Amino acid sequence: MTMSTSRPIPLESTRITGGFWQARIDVNRDVTLPLQHRHCKDTGRLDAFAWEDGKPNQPHHFWESDCAKWIEAAAYSLVHNPDPELEAQVDAYAELLAESQCADGYLNSFYQRVRPNKRWTNLRDMHELYCAGHLMEGAVAYHEATGKRTLLDVLSRYADHIARMFGPEEGKRRGYPGHEEIELALVKLYHATGNVKHLALAAFFVNERGTQPHYFDDEAKARGDEPRTYHHGNYDYTQAHLPVRRQKTAEGHSVRACYLYAGMASVAAETEDEELFAACRRIWDNITQRRMYIHGGIGSSRFGERFSFDYDLPNEDAYAETCAAIALVFFAHRMLQIEPDSRYADVMERALYNGVISGVSLDGKRFFYDNFLASHPPYQRFNGQKSPERQEWFGCACCPPNLARLLASLNGYLYTQTDDAIWTHLYGTSEVTTKLANTPVTLTQTTDYPWDGDVVVEVAPERPATFTIALRKPAWCHEATVTVKGETVEGPDESGYIALRREWQQGDRIVLTLAMPVERIEAHPSVRHDAGRVALQRGPILYCLEEADNGKDLYDVLLPTDAELTAATSGSPFEGVPIITGPAKRRDTATWSDQLYRPAGTPLVETEITAIPYFLWANRGIGEMITWIQGR
Amino acid sequence: MTMSTSRPIPLESTRITGGFWQARIDVNRDVTLPLQHRHCKDTGRLDAFAWEDGKPNQPHHFWESDCAKWIEAAAYSLVHNPDPELEAQVDAYAELLAESQCADGYLNSFYQRVRPNKRWTNLRDMHELYCAGHLMEGAVAYHEATGKRTLLDVLSRYADHIARMFGPEEGKRRGYPGHEEIELALVKLYHATGNVKHLALAAFFVNERGTQPHYFDDEAKARGDEPRTYHHGNYDYTQAHLPVRRQKTAEGHSVRACYLYAGMASVAAETEDEELFAACRRIWDNITQRRMYIHGGIGSSRFGERFSFDYDLPNEDAYAETCAAIALVFFAHRMLQIEPDSRYADVMERALYNGVISGVSLDGKRFFYDNFLASHPPYQRFNGQKSPERQEWFGCACCPPNLARLLASLNGYLYTQTDDAIWTHLYGTSEVTTKLANTPVTLTQTTDYPWDGDVVVEVAPERPATFTIALRKPAWCHEATVTVKGETVEGPDESGYIALRREWQQGDRIVLTLAMPVERIEAHPSVRHDAGRVALQRGPILYCLEEADNGKDLYDVLLPTDAELTAATSGSPFEGVPIITGPAKRRDTATWSDQLYRPAGTPLVETEITAIPYFLWANRGIGEMITWIQGR
Repeated sequence: MTMSTSRPIPLESTRITGGFWQARIDVNRDVTLPLQHRHCKDTGRLDAFAWEDGKPNQPHHFWESDCAKWIEAAAYSLVHNPDPELEAQVDAYAELLAESQCADGYLNSFYQRVRPNKRWTNLRDMHELYCAGHLMEGAVAYHEATGKRTLLDVLSRYADHIARMFGPEEGKRRGYPGHEEIELALVKLYHATGNVKHLALAAFFVNERGTQPHYFDDEAKARGDEPRTYHHGNYDYTQAHLPVRRQKTAEGHSVRACYLYAGMASVAAETEDEELFAACRRIWDNITQRRMYIHGGIGSSRFGERFSFDYDLPNEDAYAETCAAIALVFFAHRMLQIEPDSRYADVMERALYNGVISGVSLDGKRFFYDNFLASHPPYQRFNGQKSPERQEWFGCACCPPNLARLLASLNGYLYTQTDDAIWTHLYGTSEVTTKLANTPVTLTQTTDYPWDGDVVVEVAPERPATFTIALRKPAWCHEATVTVKGETVEGPDESGYIALRREWQQGDRIVLTLAMPVERIEAHPSVRHDAGRVALQRGPILYCLEEADNGKDLYDVLLPTDAELTAATSGSPFEGVPIITGPAKRRDTATWSDQLYRPAGTPLVETEITAIPYFLWANRGIGEMITWIQGR
Repeated sequence: MTMSTSRPIPLESTRITGGFWQARIDVNRDVTLPLQHRHCKDTGRLDAFAWEDGKPNQPHHFWESDCAKWIEAAAYSLVHNPDPELEAQVDAYAELLAESQCADGYLNSFYQRVRPNKRWTNLRDMHELYCAGHLMEGAVAYHEATGKRTLLDVLSRYADHIARMFGPEEGKRRGYPGHEEIELALVKLYHATGNVKHLALAAFFVNERGTQPHYFDDEAKARGDEPRTYHHGNYDYTQAHLPVRRQKTAEGHSVRACYLYAGMASVAAETEDEELFAACRRIWDNITQRRMYIHGGIGSSRFGERFSFDYDLPNEDAYAETCAAIALVFFAHRMLQIEPDSRYADVMERALYNGVISGVSLDGKRFFYDNFLASHPPYQRFNGQKSPERQEWFGCACCPPNLARLLASLNGYLYTQTDDAIWTHLYGTSEVTTKLANTPVTLTQTTDYPWDGDVVVEVAPERPATFTIALRKPAWCHEATVTVKGETVEGPDESGYIALRREWQQGDRIVLTLAMPVERIEAHPSVRHDAGRVALQRGPILYCLEEADNGKDLYDVLLPTDAELTAATSGSPFEGVPIITGPAKRRDTATWSDQLYRPAGTPLVETEITAIPYFLWANRGIGEMITWIQGR
């Protein structure tokens, strides 16, 4: 393998121009972004640096990260949607950060205002480096969007400060974050600043992690703590149980984990580090072949918000934090740049259409932190640890702004390219203009994807030029045909793409047709929670049964193997969204009276089921929901 | 309804003489009892009253209850098995209690030794009245077994002290226990002492519970605590959320709950309180029709060891504490005395053969606290809150001695009687001698129950006499025939018993034949955890699949509706115990390689399953186990 990487296309050169994503992006920009600014303002987050002892809203140690993700979302949005008010809001916060930065470059409201003189004493539990990383991402995005340097300079100085504190050199601390994120952020910062020290610091954080003597042990002792009393028990919670190159499975807190893995991939790509990339691949395989929900969610256990063990994917008790699915998208996106293989894009698409956007309501106002695959409201009421409906905000509000920044930058995930090839990873009505074979080229996608499998790509090079357009054949699709100017093309190749290399001319037209029947999907026999059950999928969209359409006791619904399932928009509670309907069977509860157990053989009665896209569940009040339906 | 009660038969008049229970009782007596004495000794429990500040093994606030249950078990065992060494052990502890009792009658090692001057300040959380109750039960049992009065007198004085402290009269506290138990114990004590004040105190504790102003509120305030900060949130945890007569569902900590309900039934029977009995029936129905596992376990939630909500019966996450199933047996046994209806005995039998004795290993040395209905060792290792194997002992060791006292007194659960009728609630090789119609009568049961459904009852009145022998037709049985002297008798009546009233003569022989095919059982459609699954039962015995016989991925095993299942002892890993075998299907994991999800339709391969009795699981090492198998 060579580390020949493909690269993403700058946001200003690509644009979602309609269809599925445009609707989500509009709501994100018009509703979610202003709402999040208000929440950050009302809760004191945006004024944390101005907080004084005795006042309300004492800064929390991860507050900057929420503001930073809001900045990032705002920046991405500004690329194609100028908004002076929004820009002024960001500028005001940037100004506050610039004023608040210490002379030595340090910048953290919690440690500057609440815990002075305790900087860098607890990397394991506190989120200093995490907050720094998010601010760096925000600063880079805002600089790219507006050209304004204030934030970028502030964060560059902060990065320089951190590089003076941490590193392999004599006299520096050999620490690294308990909550990873800064690794991938430093690579982004390096791209913006060109300062190789920023890349070196990212590589240091990656490579130092989990080595012996263990930094978290030494740091705890220096604080006067007993390392063995660590409340998470083991350093696998923070992926610091082993040096990262020796890690083979995805462990611990799943958001931290995938931020780290994305950082590892970023560093591997930049430093052409094949051993590190091999570790990324091993972990990728472990996640996607053993530890990922069908909706692309990861981190199944709510105890520690973490990965548990192979094939352990409980549905009702799923944690599957929105942030974790987003982090998996980041990881996928970076793997794809190193190795344009459709398996990464397949997972990216799976997460985006299902376990990511399930995190926000259709109106953009309410959010899920955990994305369970089955909901039983009395259970949730009883255990009190999860809610059967989306919430307005969270004390730990990582997910809402994470969603916002991802949606606002979604145009950046459609393509990657090299000098003479462009890979189409995602389908959606959009326009991209870039240079291929030294020729400015515009590609225009027109499609009703994901509701329909026809995608028309119009190719418009400024002049005839030879380059490759590679179209992903999604793994969910069993019948894909591509025609170029009406002629059918063979494919895909081993990497899962249909590579079209030819001399392209203005007006060339590619038509991709992806057969999109309703599919019953089964899970590996070792996934004990899904045994004897199937999930319904159409195209990339996972479906589910909701009480609103199907009544209660959904677990008891049986989908016969031969039941014909139809997808259609007529009768859909969501305009333009196909629902799946068909005959099924269930037991008649009325025949049971007061019995709890009785000899088997209750006759099944006919019923009709209506399945809606999973990501749309819980938009019509509280009720039961399942994704895995009895059947084969 | 009249409160015409049937009564149990004294232990000395009834005897298990062979068969299933004899084997369990022998192990209980020979292995478990000495082991528990050693544990109580080694952990300091038996010497708690002699503990002094600074020494190891500081008494815990529920330690007396463990010792008391051991005394009770020892006493029951001594009835038919004199054992001077065991008796001396009990006497020694009784002596220590007598010496330790305060002049005013108070007796509690924790408050006398560890928290002096804090008596009766926290009935809600501490277990003073609970420990007192268990000591009373032990004292009554020991007095009945040996005629020795020391313990009984000590506990009678303690009861008098408590009655001076608590009651409806002016100047007394209107408190009641946070952990119920003393209510049923005081009724037993009243039977032994004839002191109506003991009964009145039981009735007071029952009737005062949950009234307003709330005692637990006042008590918390008196301690300087804020009642609202109660760590269990709501008084339903202790069944004190409402006056007991207004309670309609089984709520809160399930052991406390069923001890209370047994106490309520005891008080209702003694005081002919029909309203109170009606509350017992309502709660009984709620438990057995909505909140009971198929193995008779209750209290499905490990969060608070409590009842959750109707039809919420998770299998792998079942709590189903051994003590709770035992408490349900106590409740059933008391309901049966008020109203000889087989539904109580059916539940008693269900619990005894399944969710109760699953609590102890075949060798009598190891114990389950929680009795889950499915086991997946990697899950248990991951969550750390439950063990996939029985343990030697517990910090909170309520279950092992509870099992010991129940097994040691099992002969007391077979029959109840009135002056001229005797009800056979349980079947087992045994002998009972009692007076019916003023005539001494011996009934001898001979059977290989529960492995075989033939029961022969030989009736031997001293002289011909007319009385009723009522034989329970178990609810699990669809084909029961009874012959008396070769003639078939009709039955059962509405109460579920086949009542044989006639003039009985020496040598009369009743033959009961209970058809015992392998049954597939299904759960109510609202039990979401069991939807699409069946449990295997034969007679009263619930079966399960263990990894030792069936490999891994047991959830994936499908039992076709037409698969013929056979019960036989040949090939059984447990001598003389029938196993169930038959053809089934499952997916072949080998065809899956690295896929996690794929289109449904994996062909099923034939497999052979072997099911063993549930209570015998986890006697052959650690492995997967399920009780609910895919099928209909």
